[in-house]
Amino acid sequence: MQHSNRLESEVRGYVRSFPTTFVSAAGAIIKDENHQQYIDFLAGAGALNYGHNNPLLKMMLLDYIEKNGVTHGLDLATKAKETFINTFDKFILKPRDLDYKMQFTGPTGTNAVEAAIKLAQIVKGRTNIITFSNAYHGHSKGSLRLTANEAYREGIESDLQHSTTFMPFCNYVDGDFSSADYLQKVLEDKGSGIDKPAAVILETIQGEGGVNVASKEWLQKIRQITKDNDVLLIIDDIQVGCGRTGSFFSFEEAGIKPDMVTLSKSLSAYGLPMSLLLFSPELDKWSPGQHTGTFRGNNLAFVTATEAIRIYWRDKDFQEEIGKRSAMAFSMLNKLKDKYPDEIKQIKGKGLIIAIQFESDELASAVGKECFDNNLIIETCGPDGDNLKLLPPLNIETEYLEKGIEIIEQAVESVLVEK
Amino acid sequence: MQHSNRLESEVRGYVRSFPTTFVSAAGAIIKDENHQQYIDFLAGAGALNYGHNNPLLKMMLLDYIEKNGVTHGLDLATKAKETFINTFDKFILKPRDLDYKMQFTGPTGTNAVEAAIKLAQIVKGRTNIITFSNAYHGHSKGSLRLTANEAYREGIESDLQHSTTFMPFCNYVDGDFSSADYLQKVLEDKGSGIDKPAAVILETIQGEGGVNVASKEWLQKIRQITKDNDVLLIIDDIQVGCGRTGSFFSFEEAGIKPDMVTLSKSLSAYGLPMSLLLFSPELDKWSPGQHTGTFRGNNLAFVTATEAIRIYWRDKDFQEEIGKRSAMAFSMLNKLKDKYPDEIKQIKGKGLIIAIQFESDELASAVGKECFDNNLIIETCGPDGDNLKLLPPLNIETEYLEKGIEIIEQAVESVLVEK
Amino acid sequence: MQHSNRLESEVRGYVRSFPTTFVSAAGAIIKDENHQQYIDFLAGAGALNYGHNNPLLKMMLLDYIEKNGVTHGLDLATKAKETFINTFDKFILKPRDLDYKMQFTGPTGTNAVEAAIKLAQIVKGRTNIITFSNAYHGHSKGSLRLTANEAYREGIESDLQHSTTFMPFCNYVDGDFSSADYLQKVLEDKGSGIDKPAAVILETIQGEGGVNVASKEWLQKIRQITKDNDVLLIIDDIQVGCGRTGSFFSFEEAGIKPDMVTLSKSLSAYGLPMSLLLFSPELDKWSPGQHTGTFRGNNLAFVTATEAIRIYWRDKDFQEEIGKRSAMAFSMLNKLKDKYPDEIKQIKGKGLIIAIQFESDELASAVGKECFDNNLIIETCGPDGDNLKLLPPLNIETEYLEKGIEIIEQAVESVLVEK
Amino acid sequence: MQHSNRLESEVRGYVRSFPTTFVSAAGAIIKDENHQQYIDFLAGAGALNYGHNNPLLKMMLLDYIEKNGVTHGLDLATKAKETFINTFDKFILKPRDLDYKMQFTGPTGTNAVEAAIKLAQIVKGRTNIITFSNAYHGHSKGSLRLTANEAYREGIESDLQHSTTFMPFCNYVDGDFSSADYLQKVLEDKGSGIDKPAAVILETIQGEGGVNVASKEWLQKIRQITKDNDVLLIIDDIQVGCGRTGSFFSFEEAGIKPDMVTLSKSLSAYGLPMSLLLFSPELDKWSPGQHTGTFRGNNLAFVTATEAIRIYWRDKDFQEEIGKRSAMAFSMLNKLKDKYPDEIKQIKGKGLIIAIQFESDELASAVGKECFDNNLIIETCGPDGDNLKLLPPLNIETEYLEKGIEIIEQAVESVLVEK
Repeated sequence: MQHSNRLESEVRGYVRSFPTTFVSAAGAIIKDENHQQYIDFLAGAGALNYGHNNPLLKMMLLDYIEKNGVTHGLDLATKAKETFINTFDKFILKPRDLDYKMQFTGPTGTNAVEAAIKLAQIVKGRTNIITFSNAYHGHSKGSLRLTANEAYREGIESDLQHSTTFMPFCNYVDGDFSSADYLQKVLEDKGSGIDKPAAVILETIQGEGGVNVASKEWLQKIRQITKDNDVLLIIDDIQVGCGRTGSFFSFEEAGIKPDMVTLSKSLSAYGLPMSLLLFSPELDKWSPGQHTGTFRGNNLAFVTATEAIRIYWRDKDFQEEIGKRSAMAFSMLNKLKDKYPDEIKQIKGKGLIIAIQFESDELASAVGKECFDNNLIIETCGPDGDNLKLLPPLNIETEYLEKGIEIIEQAVESVLVEK
Repeated sequence: MQHSNRLESEVRGYVRSFPTTFVSAAGAIIKDENHQQYIDFLAGAGALNYGHNNPLLKMMLLDYIEKNGVTHGLDLATKAKETFINTFDKFILKPRDLDYKMQFTGPTGTNAVEAAIKLAQIVKGRTNIITFSNAYHGHSKGSLRLTANEAYREGIESDLQHSTTFMPFCNYVDGDFSSADYLQKVLEDKGSGIDKPAAVILETIQGEGGVNVASKEWLQKIRQITKDNDVLLIIDDIQVGCGRTGSFFSFEEAGIKPDMVTLSKSLSAYGLPMSLLLFSPELDKWSPGQHTGTFRGNNLAFVTATEAIRIYWRDKDFQEEIGKRSAMAFSMLNKLKDKYPDEIKQIKGKGLIIAIQFESDELASAVGKECFDNNLIIETCGPDGDNLKLLPPLNIETEYLEKGIEIIEQAVESVLVEK
Repeated sequence: MQHSNRLESEVRGYVRSFPTTFVSAAGAIIKDENHQQYIDFLAGAGALNYGHNNPLLKMMLLDYIEKNGVTHGLDLATKAKETFINTFDKFILKPRDLDYKMQFTGPTGTNAVEAAIKLAQIVKGRTNIITFSNAYHGHSKGSLRLTANEAYREGIESDLQHSTTFMPFCNYVDGDFSSADYLQKVLEDKGSGIDKPAAVILETIQGEGGVNVASKEWLQKIRQITKDNDVLLIIDDIQVGCGRTGSFFSFEEAGIKPDMVTLSKSLSAYGLPMSLLLFSPELDKWSPGQHTGTFRGNNLAFVTATEAIRIYWRDKDFQEEIGKRSAMAFSMLNKLKDKYPDEIKQIKGKGLIIAIQFESDELASAVGKECFDNNLIIETCGPDGDNLKLLPPLNIETEYLEKGIEIIEQAVESVLVEK
Repeated sequence: MQHSNRLESEVRGYVRSFPTTFVSAAGAIIKDENHQQYIDFLAGAGALNYGHNNPLLKMMLLDYIEKNGVTHGLDLATKAKETFINTFDKFILKPRDLDYKMQFTGPTGTNAVEAAIKLAQIVKGRTNIITFSNAYHGHSKGSLRLTANEAYREGIESDLQHSTTFMPFCNYVDGDFSSADYLQKVLEDKGSGIDKPAAVILETIQGEGGVNVASKEWLQKIRQITKDNDVLLIIDDIQVGCGRTGSFFSFEEAGIKPDMVTLSKSLSAYGLPMSLLLFSPELDKWSPGQHTGTFRGNNLAFVTATEAIRIYWRDKDFQEEIGKRSAMAFSMLNKLKDKYPDEIKQIKGKGLIIAIQFESDELASAVGKECFDNNLIIETCGPDGDNLKLLPPLNIETEYLEKGIEIIEQAVESVLVEK
């Protein structure tokens, strides 16, 4: 068993669900040492939106390495970084009328979140940060205290309970209760007990938390409330940015402009570690070197990230393709739900982040296992583990997308028959 | 000016000292867009112990990418990871009689520190962590609160003042005071006010903090005291591990076995983001998935890291070479100090991490600037910025090492003459 | 002006509303140095439920002092304490079927709250405490962080934001939202982000917070939820216990048994500092001396407290009298509200803690001032200061109660006419 | 057994050492229900500097109560308070050239400490507070985190580890180490890791911590360092103020002026709860009502406190008497030490707070027990409990002082013989 390795820690998770040793990968397919091929609906937990080892990017990467392009550059100016910055500005920011400064933090999502929180606290001179039920922002302490899932907090709770307020996310509470109105009351009422925060941080779709989709209206309200109360709004677009919901940023449909945005995962487009914090220029109150890190300048990532933007985001074509694939997936899955109205509670999501919520975690888990046995890699999510989450590459071939969902259908059937 | 970029944050630091745009690099040399060549005594702040784009590693890297080896693998088992684990065990751990489990955390040093602290807290059921004056452990909140330099803490102090006790490092206090004895008293006396910690974390040489070298005896005492008091000892070997002090781990000479060790920076050997937490097997109390991260499985880094170990650490040759270069550097620098006994306070360091401590930060800064103007990249360090820190690649050609130090000599002369 | 004293701090509050120098007092009347007599509807902010210098208690007090009874006794056993303990057990606990241990903490309410929180944390091994919007528990740090009013938190917020979760109190949110159901969800859902608390602390009527009355059903639900989730329920009965709501404990009507109860204010019955923490015997996990304090044994207070229990709580007579006075007051005030339906938003409260909520804080404040000019002492409360709070002695003569309310009626009229 | 009471908590401490039920008391004598008389060297843990039920004060107290003087007054202006303020100013502050504002906090020492810390944090806009090894400041959370003894912290450590830095007290570290110089370095060095504090708080003699006496020079240095670094100095004079060391304030001999001083315990002079915070007028940045409390205006305490100042502090006579008693006690105890050089490590203290440090806690405890059996009440102190602490009333009759010490001498002899 891969996870009972004498030399590697028990902390590993995915390897338990997909217990084989992988060797190579291309696009939506990943191969193991036994020559098995798997369709990959996990896609690096959202880090492989453009598939494994995308051949267009690979060419650029090989060329850059061959030519001894700077690999490691700290925060030095390099040609590769300059090119990325200008490309990102030209094809991503400008067309969306977004005026942001860029900060390359340590190249993991949690580092970008840490930088965002710290900057918000410095700019506003307040410590409290508002986060939400089922939020996921990472595992370093500054991010972990904003993360809801109790499995991640266990054993160190007392070291996380500070400078943080959890509020109910959109639709967390049933009935006519509006969590946005509640947030407004809490911020504006002198007796709420909740100190004015430096920032509100949120994911527009809580991927890890169970694929909970915030409504357009809710996002707009939150943007208004934060603005009215002089509180910064940080959108953590690490998992659902970079096209996952159909547009480059997940908040485009809502038409809002956050004060800060965190990006990582698929930003490098090749599975290479890279992170980016965007913020409004007037927030750039950093002292030189105040937030540093050794791997801020992962130039190989700049190269592939630049190329991905040039290829996929120069026009609307890619966005439309995602929309078509999404429609196909939802259509197939909704039929599945109609077939098993008791066993499947709902089909949730947007773009190509889609969850099938089963009536129990046992069922979700059994289906996931059956899928793996049939060469589909797909994970469960949510605090109760009762969701199966589809996170295929955005450029997955339609055949593989269809095939993958068919494997799920058969797995559901097979598991339910066995019961 | 590279740092007054309209699009990039003011947070950048190095770019201010070395204001040009770099394009390519090889070994100890880095080139800018104006075809200037610089000797690199910064070496990625210790991330490039084997030089830029080491050609032996480059070959393996290109080959792996060509063949579509898995690039991004989360914590899945991959051939590349397995090979790294076995190689690290065979050439690093076993010969040193070290029995550790490996945890691949998010691929930056601070992520490894965060994991170490968290695991220590979980295992011991205590929150307090002891750290030291001038310590540097990173910028995410869990690491930042252990970091001493006030420039990094400014504006968010109140969010850092918890679960942390700062103690004086070896030789921080002058006179016959022993900071190890003081630590012992604090831990054993019921009236010290300092709650029993889960762990003591330290760098054997505080690189960022001014190249402060802990003595062998001090390290041995700390190891004994922590053992006697049921407190874990974490060595943060991120900057001075991987051969920087002459041996693979910086604590080898002291003959101690820490409970945990963090590695990063030069671990991948190619400037690729990679981190590793080592800990005694009995500490492996993680629940599956309790500490995760998207880029834990940077397989390109596994490939180059494996090859570097095979090449440089299969026998004692490399270690001896480092020793020779170190001796040469110290010899030249001590002569320089003899020449300027008032302006240079001391030459500090070990192996190839060496600091020239000047009598003022202005002098250190002026010399550094003069070096850059003469095509040597070298940074200042310490809370007061009065040290010039030599951090060349460990495999730097003797000629470049000599040439680099000559540039420093001339820069000192030139700056002092001008004054 | 009394509050611009050269020698006394600007922190004083009440003296600003009632700017005269008081000399003597008896029952519901307090006299100043200008021989003015005031009806006292403030009653020591609830510390004088039996009136100023109650003559029956005074006799016992004088006698005890005359005879050199122990005045100050730390936690030593004294006759006066033993007598109090037995009397409290006989007339208060036993008849209500309450099985509690008694802890005499430092003699202020906040000290009792601090002890309760600390004990809950020790017993449960958890740090988080759940408190509510508009809660008031005192001003020492452990209590202050549980206190909602932002005026009390200002300037030290960052030092209060830990180990604390604020939840919406009964009826804090309008509509069909049930804050008890929400609490249940938060406690039982693994994705709420809110760590399992050691305890929930609440006032059944939030006196300082605006006389917000928790419904019987809400209290019962909270009791059930805390029990089901292994969380302690602490009722802070400092202001509304000792008969204020009509029964000795404010939670009697709801028929619940809290795990801990804090008492202070009117406990000594003579305005003498005294506090008491009650808790279920199985929670008595204190080590000897673990929570101490110099004035735990205020024996003069034991003497008057004992006598008050013997006089007022040996049968139901006093309780019935309070009921009659309460009915009279509510009747008069509701008529006033009917007369000014726009200016008076509601009459809130229970027993003899009653608030007139005006449509603005200016109005409340103006009426309060007019009352004082007409020799009635009455304060405003709530985070917005828009409530006028009636807190007369429970044994106030009917004539004084009527007279006091008439002064309010005239003040309202007079203020509204002026406008 | 008094402490195994069914109805009272196990938290009680003193009752375990002195297991009888006390009834009445006068001066240095306290009597139990079995007509036993005890000499009281505990004196309310320093709250009874003028003896139990001092007859001169008692007269005033009875008179005030008889006349229905205001007993409970919140922060209202009362004649009794005004008189106290003016008397304190005239006989205490003015003759010592001290210009302080007075704040009457909740009437326990810990409440005064809480107010001091809070005000320091507000005024300086910083959260960190520096405290010392073996410090004792009380049991509410804000004070407890400044308190060193691990017995008080156990079980809630993780909730105390914030905004606090423990430093070594005067002579805590042996050898030529100067803890004042170390404090200076920590405050002035940018790499100490210890954030600039709002205040340094200390006891000039750590009573509870083992009767550790800070030297005059050390106090002067700390005053200078705090001034130079814009840090407030708070002297907690709760136990050793009010004449205990020979002068009214314990810091008079050192000739320093703290920014804030806390007083309680013997301030009321009759064992009645009362506390006072003194601070320099420019620090009076409180908003009205920002730090409140029900029992701030304990008018009975004002009455006795006023009278005590008039009687004992109008001239130098009392001070001289304390000096004589102190000299006598030290002389007798030093002889005892000379007789038992191995068993008694040292005689420590000043004025009438004196500790006999034994070579073990068992010995100290056995001697204390033997004393009680011979009708002397005296407690052990220090984190290890190896000190016997003499804390007699300051006005104790010479005969009783002598007699008490003789009981100790006999107890030592008797215990050592038995061994």
